[in-house]
Amino acid sequence: MIEMMIELQGGAKAPLYEKIYESIKQDIMTGKIPKGEKLPSTRQLAKHLTVSRSTVELAYDQLLAEGYLNAEPCRGFFVCDISQLYQLEGRVLPECHRQERETREEWKVDFSPYAISTEHFPFNIWRKISKDVLLDDSEDLLLPGHSQGEYELRSAIATYLYQARGVNCRVSDIIVGAGNEYLEILLAQILGEKKCVWMEAPGYPQAYHTFRNMGYQVTCLSAERGGIEEIRRKNPDLIYIMPSHQFPMGTVMPLGQRLELLQWASETEGRYLIEDDHDSEYRYRGKPIPSLQSIDRYGKVIYLGTFSKSIAPSLRISYMVLPKELIQQYRQNCGFYSNTVPRIQQEILREFIQGGHFERHLNKMRGIYKGKRDYLLGELKGCPWVEAIRGDHGGLHLLVEVHTRKTEEQLCNLAAERGVKVSGILQYQLHTGSRKSEQKPTLLLGYGRLTDKQIQEGLYLLTEVV
Amino acid sequence: MIEMMIELQGGAKAPLYEKIYESIKQDIMTGKIPKGEKLPSTRQLAKHLTVSRSTVELAYDQLLAEGYLNAEPCRGFFVCDISQLYQLEGRVLPECHRQERETREEWKVDFSPYAISTEHFPFNIWRKISKDVLLDDSEDLLLPGHSQGEYELRSAIATYLYQARGVNCRVSDIIVGAGNEYLEILLAQILGEKKCVWMEAPGYPQAYHTFRNMGYQVTCLSAERGGIEEIRRKNPDLIYIMPSHQFPMGTVMPLGQRLELLQWASETEGRYLIEDDHDSEYRYRGKPIPSLQSIDRYGKVIYLGTFSKSIAPSLRISYMVLPKELIQQYRQNCGFYSNTVPRIQQEILREFIQGGHFERHLNKMRGIYKGKRDYLLGELKGCPWVEAIRGDHGGLHLLVEVHTRKTEEQLCNLAAERGVKVSGILQYQLHTGSRKSEQKPTLLLGYGRLTDKQIQEGLYLLTEVV
Repeated sequence: MIEMMIELQGGAKAPLYEKIYESIKQDIMTGKIPKGEKLPSTRQLAKHLTVSRSTVELAYDQLLAEGYLNAEPCRGFFVCDISQLYQLEGRVLPECHRQERETREEWKVDFSPYAISTEHFPFNIWRKISKDVLLDDSEDLLLPGHSQGEYELRSAIATYLYQARGVNCRVSDIIVGAGNEYLEILLAQILGEKKCVWMEAPGYPQAYHTFRNMGYQVTCLSAERGGIEEIRRKNPDLIYIMPSHQFPMGTVMPLGQRLELLQWASETEGRYLIEDDHDSEYRYRGKPIPSLQSIDRYGKVIYLGTFSKSIAPSLRISYMVLPKELIQQYRQNCGFYSNTVPRIQQEILREFIQGGHFERHLNKMRGIYKGKRDYLLGELKGCPWVEAIRGDHGGLHLLVEVHTRKTEEQLCNLAAERGVKVSGILQYQLHTGSRKSEQKPTLLLGYGRLTDKQIQEGLYLLTEVV
Repeated sequence: MIEMMIELQGGAKAPLYEKIYESIKQDIMTGKIPKGEKLPSTRQLAKHLTVSRSTVELAYDQLLAEGYLNAEPCRGFFVCDISQLYQLEGRVLPECHRQERETREEWKVDFSPYAISTEHFPFNIWRKISKDVLLDDSEDLLLPGHSQGEYELRSAIATYLYQARGVNCRVSDIIVGAGNEYLEILLAQILGEKKCVWMEAPGYPQAYHTFRNMGYQVTCLSAERGGIEEIRRKNPDLIYIMPSHQFPMGTVMPLGQRLELLQWASETEGRYLIEDDHDSEYRYRGKPIPSLQSIDRYGKVIYLGTFSKSIAPSLRISYMVLPKELIQQYRQNCGFYSNTVPRIQQEILREFIQGGHFERHLNKMRGIYKGKRDYLLGELKGCPWVEAIRGDHGGLHLLVEVHTRKTEEQLCNLAAERGVKVSGILQYQLHTGSRKSEQKPTLLLGYGRLTDKQIQEGLYLLTEVV
């Protein structure tokens, strides 16, 4: 047995047991007490240090728990072999305290097609609902909820989808999740490994990369419509489409083609159509285009929707309507997952929808975005470099074909130098193979977040660039 | 050209253009206007119906957009082939409006090890912070945020982790996500396909199923510690462990074993240890056990933590600290993903931590849970069927070995009949192959959500069952 030198006076203000623990630990780490050495019993050490025995026991317990000591029944405490432990001494402060804050991009004019207007968000309604939801008797909201999302929220979504998009589903067919990408990841786990999915190109890069990350083979359909023969020849498992408002082209899939796709999907088990109905709320001419799901009688459409455009992207709430057989597969393979949307947020959103605030907000925003679009269209008339405008009946951006000898990339880079963020259609081509160099440069002009003045300034700067 | 019969008087209160649209659509769907037929020009029809030409144009536009009509330049409008369209008439109300509400389990006493106490949640503080966060000038919170989570929240987490768990990391090494399962899904995408991961059994079923869903080969380590030779022989890519407080066994991994694992991981590229530090906040004897990450000098530890136990499971906020090279891989493969935690929630949590509320809440809850544990331990002394108690120094449950001739499954089923929800250790064995029938029945008694009275009642009912 060894003699222990433990300094209990002075030093940091820590409990006695911690000082004893710390001192022994240091001696073990520095090798002053070698491995295999037997320590004094708790009674001996307590007497030696004139502290209570329970204090020493607490220190020994901690050393035991962390693995510095071993207790051998009837024999006592022995030092473990920790020879691989390096010196923790002189450890530097974590870099986090010295690190610079990550910077964010700053643009004079941001033509991003994803941008939304935030100045009309009904903060006071949202705040009022939050307050009500967080009343003291809402303890239940802290507990784990339904894996698919709370029934009440799904019920509100089902009613909205039926009324606004013609979607015909049961509440139990809906899965709420933290964003489209998460739902696509979930979908890949429901459908199983190694599927082959076709997407239109240009299209959503996020969906493309998500399916690739999940090990899916992703093939791009050419932008020209009517490729049902090619589909029949190549025979994919899934087709991902945006029939009501294709991103970024802004086109609507004609009924005939919808029916062809449904027919194709119905012919073999395991074929599905993924309908991403991302911003169908915003259509400025005529009635909304009914969803593909609404005319599906075969149970072949997987319907994806989101509140990112209609409320806010940072809300992170999307939903998916699954055909019955896929809901069964979901329960089998993925039913153990906790829902990814906080229950407090779910409850706030439910009240926002059922209280009629969502509808009012949508109607207001539709008017606001239409105003922005009209202003942009008007201003574009004065731009001599505009060759054609497309996709202007819906969504939050339009496409402008540019009369220039510069390439799209050059245009975007030159614009960026002037503080204008703008993207070209080639950035949405998903993979380089399908790029067509003979195509006229085409820019996406998103107007969701821009004021009239910014639109003016942006077009002025773009005119300089061209 | 055909004669059109369009009834504009009476009927539903809809805009004129909608009535025209609806009437033509019906005629196309019922075949009254056959495919290929030419429609009157907008001018002719407007004159015929004595409405403005723009009204007819709007109706035709909608029919064009939806694909009922085709416009041929200089020739006019023609009816498309939609012969596959079935009758939408007589469509029933969606089932959602007739469906029964999904029912939830009701228990007299719920010994679930996942349950937490909710009655001490600081609702008024949370409400106050929510209100402040939702002030009208917080528009920025609606926009997409940083893919890894907001810098300010990650900074608060980095400081907490350094102080409470010894975790040494940069703010930029942290990824915030909607729950551990989501982060594990993300991790699988960062690490790449087809890895082989080892887990301790018994262990967390959720992690087991998540890795399996991601196509990983999951092998279970036996519960006996010290299997480094087996690890060296079989050579997995990843080892998933809970060194500070193993679930459900409640054991602490000794320092020697930690060092062995770190040494093993350091020997070859691509090997990593996943440290799930799920409820290390709750330790009732001595100091918290330092994290494995805190002694890792090789950059081999992937650290996972959550606010599910320390605040609420329904909050859905977890975090992951990645070694530098994995953060680079994350940015390459997964940087395009939007963060899954709503920004408003992130900001509320940041204020909750930085305002000192989190620390106070944790200290309070530690005391409350310790009280519940002590009460349960005291009551168990009076139960003649208790053979041994384990894992009682931390967490929210303890293990009770039962002296009985019944099987674990029988015990749990009989308890359920009496309204007591209790699980046995075999339920956490992850796969049936590793079940040991010779083992004494062992129950998990979670006490997080129980009152003293419920504990008493639960044990009374369990005594009856045994």
